[in-house]
Amino acid sequence: MTGDIAHLGHVEMLTDRFEESLDFFTRVYGLKLSGRADGSAYLRAWDDYEFHTLKLTEAQTTGVGHVAYRATSAEALDRRVAAIEASGFAAHGWHDGDLGHGPAYRFEDPFGHVFEIYWDTRRYAATGNDRPALKNTASRYQQNGCAPRRLDHLNLLAEDVTEFRRFMQTCLGSRVTEMIQLDNGRLGGCWFTVNNKTYDLACTEEHGGGMGRLHHVTYATDQREDILRAADIFLENGVHIETGPHKHAIQGTFFLYVWEPAGNRVELANAGARLILAPDWQPVVWTETERKKGQAWGLKTIESFHTHGTPPVKTSSGTDGAA
Amino acid sequence: MTGDIAHLGHVEMLTDRFEESLDFFTRVYGLKLSGRADGSAYLRAWDDYEFHTLKLTEAQTTGVGHVAYRATSAEALDRRVAAIEASGFAAHGWHDGDLGHGPAYRFEDPFGHVFEIYWDTRRYAATGNDRPALKNTASRYQQNGCAPRRLDHLNLLAEDVTEFRRFMQTCLGSRVTEMIQLDNGRLGGCWFTVNNKTYDLACTEEHGGGMGRLHHVTYATDQREDILRAADIFLENGVHIETGPHKHAIQGTFFLYVWEPAGNRVELANAGARLILAPDWQPVVWTETERKKGQAWGLKTIESFHTHGTPPVKTSSGTDGAA
Amino acid sequence: MTGDIAHLGHVEMLTDRFEESLDFFTRVYGLKLSGRADGSAYLRAWDDYEFHTLKLTEAQTTGVGHVAYRATSAEALDRRVAAIEASGFAAHGWHDGDLGHGPAYRFEDPFGHVFEIYWDTRRYAATGNDRPALKNTASRYQQNGCAPRRLDHLNLLAEDVTEFRRFMQTCLGSRVTEMIQLDNGRLGGCWFTVNNKTYDLACTEEHGGGMGRLHHVTYATDQREDILRAADIFLENGVHIETGPHKHAIQGTFFLYVWEPAGNRVELANAGARLILAPDWQPVVWTETERKKGQAWGLKTIESFHTHGTPPVKTSSGTDGAA
Amino acid sequence: MTGDIAHLGHVEMLTDRFEESLDFFTRVYGLKLSGRADGSAYLRAWDDYEFHTLKLTEAQTTGVGHVAYRATSAEALDRRVAAIEASGFAAHGWHDGDLGHGPAYRFEDPFGHVFEIYWDTRRYAATGNDRPALKNTASRYQQNGCAPRRLDHLNLLAEDVTEFRRFMQTCLGSRVTEMIQLDNGRLGGCWFTVNNKTYDLACTEEHGGGMGRLHHVTYATDQREDILRAADIFLENGVHIETGPHKHAIQGTFFLYVWEPAGNRVELANAGARLILAPDWQPVVWTETERKKGQAWGLKTIESFHTHGTPPVKTSSGTDGAA
Repeated sequence: MTGDIAHLGHVEMLTDRFEESLDFFTRVYGLKLSGRADGSAYLRAWDDYEFHTLKLTEAQTTGVGHVAYRATSAEALDRRVAAIEASGFAAHGWHDGDLGHGPAYRFEDPFGHVFEIYWDTRRYAATGNDRPALKNTASRYQQNGCAPRRLDHLNLLAEDVTEFRRFMQTCLGSRVTEMIQLDNGRLGGCWFTVNNKTYDLACTEEHGGGMGRLHHVTYATDQREDILRAADIFLENGVHIETGPHKHAIQGTFFLYVWEPAGNRVELANAGARLILAPDWQPVVWTETERKKGQAWGLKTIESFHTHGTPPVKTSSGTDGAA
Repeated sequence: MTGDIAHLGHVEMLTDRFEESLDFFTRVYGLKLSGRADGSAYLRAWDDYEFHTLKLTEAQTTGVGHVAYRATSAEALDRRVAAIEASGFAAHGWHDGDLGHGPAYRFEDPFGHVFEIYWDTRRYAATGNDRPALKNTASRYQQNGCAPRRLDHLNLLAEDVTEFRRFMQTCLGSRVTEMIQLDNGRLGGCWFTVNNKTYDLACTEEHGGGMGRLHHVTYATDQREDILRAADIFLENGVHIETGPHKHAIQGTFFLYVWEPAGNRVELANAGARLILAPDWQPVVWTETERKKGQAWGLKTIESFHTHGTPPVKTSSGTDGAA
Repeated sequence: MTGDIAHLGHVEMLTDRFEESLDFFTRVYGLKLSGRADGSAYLRAWDDYEFHTLKLTEAQTTGVGHVAYRATSAEALDRRVAAIEASGFAAHGWHDGDLGHGPAYRFEDPFGHVFEIYWDTRRYAATGNDRPALKNTASRYQQNGCAPRRLDHLNLLAEDVTEFRRFMQTCLGSRVTEMIQLDNGRLGGCWFTVNNKTYDLACTEEHGGGMGRLHHVTYATDQREDILRAADIFLENGVHIETGPHKHAIQGTFFLYVWEPAGNRVELANAGARLILAPDWQPVVWTETERKKGQAWGLKTIESFHTHGTPPVKTSSGTDGAA
Repeated sequence: MTGDIAHLGHVEMLTDRFEESLDFFTRVYGLKLSGRADGSAYLRAWDDYEFHTLKLTEAQTTGVGHVAYRATSAEALDRRVAAIEASGFAAHGWHDGDLGHGPAYRFEDPFGHVFEIYWDTRRYAATGNDRPALKNTASRYQQNGCAPRRLDHLNLLAEDVTEFRRFMQTCLGSRVTEMIQLDNGRLGGCWFTVNNKTYDLACTEEHGGGMGRLHHVTYATDQREDILRAADIFLENGVHIETGPHKHAIQGTFFLYVWEPAGNRVELANAGARLILAPDWQPVVWTETERKKGQAWGLKTIESFHTHGTPPVKTSSGTDGAA
């Protein structure tokens, strides 16, 4: 790790059912609305310190708009920009920023996902009824809906995970914590982090022929019990539960996957006290044979997990799952 | 943060009831024994990646032997040594290392606590029955006793917390995440971290006249429920529960404090998904008035928490609590 | 047990801050409003099968209006009425019933608490958005506030617990599951049940000189984690947390006590999987010495727990705690 | 309910891998050994009040030896015996009892399962290190293995669930709390209770052609977290996890199913605070269509759940799953 990047900042998610998606994220999933502007809603979990960690944007389709990381300083940001410009990966250049942060530098991976890095940010300032009882939390504990604590990670699909890994290491200085080594020599998946979290971004192999697709976005809960409770909340609200709750073999995270109304997959996850503290952590490599055992406690990976991404891919027989 | 120090590595704890303390830590608290040598037992939690995180040493008294941090690289270690030698704080110099790590550089705070930093370490290699079912954990999940996941932090007592803060910032490059500002202008307590953990070391004001004393050592559990279960385990084993389970106002950690057989205070704690990700985190400052509200849910801080440290301080009326 | 009484049905609670109390019970504590009539609000937990389990009544003061138990059949009800009329305890006779049930027979203990028993009841019929996803729950899982699952028990104060025990055994056929035997020969407290629950009513000795007072009313949560979460909800809503979360030594229940806006004490509790299944259960008798150890994990019983009841008792120096 | 039967008392389980099964139940599943005699081991959960709730018996095969219920009194036992003798169901008559209880009356359902009812029992008397810290628990909290609190229920297979229901109602006076009504008019499953538990025995339709087979035996944990922890314990001990953890749609129980070394299916379950308190509870009837939705949060019922029972059924292609 270069130490130049501090953490995943926010994800822009596209939806073609904007009001339904917004209702889901605020009332059911339990995020807070910081503001709305120009067809986007800015959302955050109750202990996210920035103005937003999810930018929900009205669009003709679904998927990810862009992925943003915050640098550790202005100088670190400059160093990253220089590295990206020297890398040969597609650089979009600077833009002025957004409601939630200042100038940001955009670039793109070879599979169509847009990234940005920024330093100047807007801290969320809780006022009135949103001021927390304890001054060390960013806002009042969210009492409605699933109410995760903070943004955790996202998962992107790419046709060549090895190349995606080179992109992440070169542009963000991410390190790899775990990966899947397929029998055919390809990487089946790769988990990255820029800090002590076990991962802040994962990439798994695209099998559907799509470009720039999103697999899922995840927020972290404080306890596993929060996820069991969330399952009942999703059930009562008619939300499609895709799989879980269960424990991942890879990374050991307790998980629950659902589809928001427009079909984007979202997860709630809990890593317990697990952190990557070793500065010389060696990536854990999983073989195809090991992966066939399913998840940690034996749950078989559900078929749609391998095929469903957003936006859906048009096929001769129609689009995949996100009905 | 300089980025030179990766994490708290281990704590050496002294005990004048060695066999009882060792029985407590292995059978009740739920650590694993990596080895014994020269009057010391080397212990680790089941997912600690190094050979040991607690060195339990037979001694004439109790308290802390030394506190060790691991550097992020050999070069980072050199930078830290240079900074320490330039600092004016007491430098002990290099020693050859220990069962669990290579060469280490020792130095001391003005209050008698010995620190060391090292780079070369010995990874714990699980064999036989201790090999985990999932290859991303350091050893088999510990099924007996309280079984925390990893070392979390320790708390030291110092007569001048402001001066201790200067020591931590200068020597380790730690940053302050929270602190107590007393009405008399002094710092009542200060919480430090070198990484994304909310704290790895805390210092609170010494009121008993002791030197180099330990307040407590803490391991992290994956869930709050692990701490509730631990309370029953301590109860059934006749362990003195000092206070908790409850939630700290400062740092929001769910906690439980007990005394091991020799009187050293040990804690189990759970921070949920809380991390310090902001690179420009501003310390949270608590006033004396705010602290009078007690812990997060109103529990009053128990009197012994202000007086009991190890080793006990001899007074005209005997020693303090650790009977 | 006679088998004539099925379960605690509902409690009528008086409040001199009706709207504030109603807001507390619906928005914060997490009960559902079934209806309002004649200065009362009828409330139930999301899985209570009857129309109401809490009748909140506007009054000049606080405390308990009446306590209702449901009989196991019409014949069983008749048998109980005959037993009560033969008992010498004060019989008020029949009344027509209420919004939530049919004819009920009222009687009174020697300490001024009014009881009633009934058979005809009104089952809660969930409609519209309140219909549960799973047909075996009484209504939709409550997603806001603390959201306990069902009414659990209440605690009444009486000057002579031994006499109160005779009342409960004679009139309701309750059995005693645990009790406190004071050194002076008196009973300090007594826990009763009419079914497999560990207790549905407790009585502790009145020390404040009041008559017919309430100590607390309790709803049950599914998990202990629900109570930890509730503590944060109470904290964020400025509710007075009196004591807990902690585990009772008596009955082993995990608990949290707060005061609703008018000063009535309410509890959330979780008994885990503990039930009294033995038909010949022998009461567990606690001595005064044993009780001095405090709660299960050592928490000292808070002073107000011994003095605060509702309604408050007028003294020369003012009323007790319920400010 | 007649009120004659108090609760499920114990289950005799047969094993052809006795020592392995005993090791599983004591070290991994977390029961305590009360005694051994004549090829059987007598086991109990830490808060079961009787000498044993599981009798593990060395045999040529697997499955259930007998199922025992305790009566509420000697007179109630006599009433039940008279009812059974008048019923036309197969009566085996009295036997002298066992290590754990006095005289018992045996009878049999039409599908080959042997039942017994008894009144005289042997309470477990904890001594020495097994005495609990709190006198209201039957023995010391079990700190090793999964450590459920008490016996909960069992599930038997029968070719005609309607006839089995008549057996349970006639012989034990059980009431039905939930059931599955198949489109073909048959009952697919039926859940019974003799007390306030949501069920103590379930019967599902036998599809494998076996007679007198066992589907599973279940112990109750205090919290759902205990079951998540148990999943890791099973994983680390190489125990076959068949399905879960997840939440049943029927009864809403949180569950985890594993196979003990001889192939008998055992479950850990948690019902939260759910009880059947209504004396006039109407059975919840699930249709085939509703059951096709899978478990509460969408998990599909695993195929072996419909076919695997013990003892295995011999087929031309070998025996079913219990390899």
